[in-house]
Amino acid sequence: MTLSRREFAKLGALGLASQAVPSALAQASGRKIGFCVIGLGRIADHFLRGVKDSSVCQITGLVSGHRDKALKIAAQYGVPASSIYSYEQMDAMRSNKAIDAVYVALPNSMHAEYTIRSAKAGKHVLCEKPMSTSVADAQAMIAACDAAKVKLMIAYRLHYEPLTLKTIKLLRDGTFGEIQAINSANGFNIGKNEWRKDKPLSGGGPLMDVGIYSLNAARYLTGEEPQIVTASNSTIDKDGRFTTVEENTAWTMTFPSGVVASCTTTYGGDMPGYYRVFCSKGWLQMDNFGYEDLRLTGSYRNSEGKRVALDETNPERDPKQFTREADHLAECILKNQTPKTSGEEGLRDMRYMKEIYRAAGVNNL
Amino acid sequence: MTLSRREFAKLGALGLASQAVPSALAQASGRKIGFCVIGLGRIADHFLRGVKDSSVCQITGLVSGHRDKALKIAAQYGVPASSIYSYEQMDAMRSNKAIDAVYVALPNSMHAEYTIRSAKAGKHVLCEKPMSTSVADAQAMIAACDAAKVKLMIAYRLHYEPLTLKTIKLLRDGTFGEIQAINSANGFNIGKNEWRKDKPLSGGGPLMDVGIYSLNAARYLTGEEPQIVTASNSTIDKDGRFTTVEENTAWTMTFPSGVVASCTTTYGGDMPGYYRVFCSKGWLQMDNFGYEDLRLTGSYRNSEGKRVALDETNPERDPKQFTREADHLAECILKNQTPKTSGEEGLRDMRYMKEIYRAAGVNNL
Repeated sequence: MTLSRREFAKLGALGLASQAVPSALAQASGRKIGFCVIGLGRIADHFLRGVKDSSVCQITGLVSGHRDKALKIAAQYGVPASSIYSYEQMDAMRSNKAIDAVYVALPNSMHAEYTIRSAKAGKHVLCEKPMSTSVADAQAMIAACDAAKVKLMIAYRLHYEPLTLKTIKLLRDGTFGEIQAINSANGFNIGKNEWRKDKPLSGGGPLMDVGIYSLNAARYLTGEEPQIVTASNSTIDKDGRFTTVEENTAWTMTFPSGVVASCTTTYGGDMPGYYRVFCSKGWLQMDNFGYEDLRLTGSYRNSEGKRVALDETNPERDPKQFTREADHLAECILKNQTPKTSGEEGLRDMRYMKEIYRAAGVNNL
Repeated sequence: MTLSRREFAKLGALGLASQAVPSALAQASGRKIGFCVIGLGRIADHFLRGVKDSSVCQITGLVSGHRDKALKIAAQYGVPASSIYSYEQMDAMRSNKAIDAVYVALPNSMHAEYTIRSAKAGKHVLCEKPMSTSVADAQAMIAACDAAKVKLMIAYRLHYEPLTLKTIKLLRDGTFGEIQAINSANGFNIGKNEWRKDKPLSGGGPLMDVGIYSLNAARYLTGEEPQIVTASNSTIDKDGRFTTVEENTAWTMTFPSGVVASCTTTYGGDMPGYYRVFCSKGWLQMDNFGYEDLRLTGSYRNSEGKRVALDETNPERDPKQFTREADHLAECILKNQTPKTSGEEGLRDMRYMKEIYRAAGVNNL
């Protein structure tokens, strides 16, 4: 099946383009978009399975420092051994026509280098969040992808998650009236051997890794950019885990409309991800920033003044969010469009995280 | 029944004194502790009903600007017409032996004057929160009660509420490990005719009235005093309600141990009161800072590493919290003890609210 430009436009007008088009385009192009996964850690496994479920993407390359591990995964996903690269040899993927894009699933401090090398190799880039470990690196990543004329997308899963999109729509269409305030938290009790608590790899503490969900959510919920930031960091546990990054951060953000948000993040305790949005006609709560089991609750007063309760879950299971992500980049590649969560979106969060650190008295990022 | 000093001590050691003693003491003294209610607004009604349910207290006086209204209430609670005072004549209660204590249920800016006049009339004082509309007033209230040798208690209901006390105990005894962070919010969409949004009566915005619950909770949950405060105020609605006070406040507090708290309050939206406490071994949430329907949920890992879920409600109905408050002051009067929520406790919150305002760039309180 191929689609004429007119058919495209029609699908777009019906709001169906995002569902129908990638598949049609991929079929039109005669092949699936090929992803090379750089770094075969925990999150790469979700992505590999996500792409396996996709009708428009496939895994066509792997980059790993462990060839044995890579060979096993290659066999599982039908990747030829010739498309397995070491980090050193990775640039050779330039000549591999089966690889359209890379998924950068490395520790944060390596995002910039591998995004830039991939761009120079002519590959589109889907890079995990946080985008980088400095604002300057994020800017360099954008510049490199621009220069190479490749797409740069930051892997903000929830921008493609239906219940989150529904929540944003409910807030935008006035169902809840005006947003006044947001509370959010996201964190966990980190293990002793996690790279994420080591600044040379992570670039910072829980804000970078999980607090970023609250920051990003406050932005997509309001559709605004924070104007005033206040913050405080702390470290409680002296058990050797927090020698290079802080354990906790609490911060507030004030948006141009006047919406205030207050958030916390931790590497030292159980902190199930959630946000609550307080509005003039009601309030809502989203539980879970994770890969599944998102739940939206709350209530609002309708036009007749009657209280309407909400309680909705997204029944989709992992790795659906990763399929959606990969499909979005595939669509952007095929249609030559800018990803919704572009490098600029990642850069904005980097700038706000730098501001949060600054407000807490720390010069970072 | 009368209790010897030895019997008292025994009850205290068993932790039973607080339940058993007021009644025993009141019976020993031959009469109930008499309360005069100053201000017959909405909250006074809860208190009147609360005292009616008490076995150790009774309503013995009323102060009101509306004698007709006062006469009706007096009839309902068995108060003689001679014990109804106007605000101007109130000081005459000095010679009324049936009145042991007053309950100050007036707008915030009148708390200081009526607390001090009551103290000078030789009456113990239970004063609503927020204690006053300035730190200096709070200090003057304490000094006046000290000078008159009367008790001063601030009406922090939740310090006497069993589910709250259980939550504090669970946090103190290590069930949840170390507290890392707290989120809390409390607010509501205020009506056009509420005195609470008028600074001359309220002294400030939602922080003073409802945000104070989050502030006070963070203090009783941690058992610590905040060391660092950050904050931001905003006003979104330009509908005439917020000409003298701000509509929203977001703030953070950092405690000496390193616990961070982030909170919001509003007068512009639905904001059900709650706090979430994030700890090294689990997390808990209390819903509702109100008069009933408090619910504690969450989970923790026990000593065997097994996840234990909590879901508990306090089935007590309004006005039980008011009965508990009145009974506590009665006990303190009878035993000559300092109330758990003394004037000093109220003064501390006044100081922190002043700090929150200051952090938000406002010179207030």
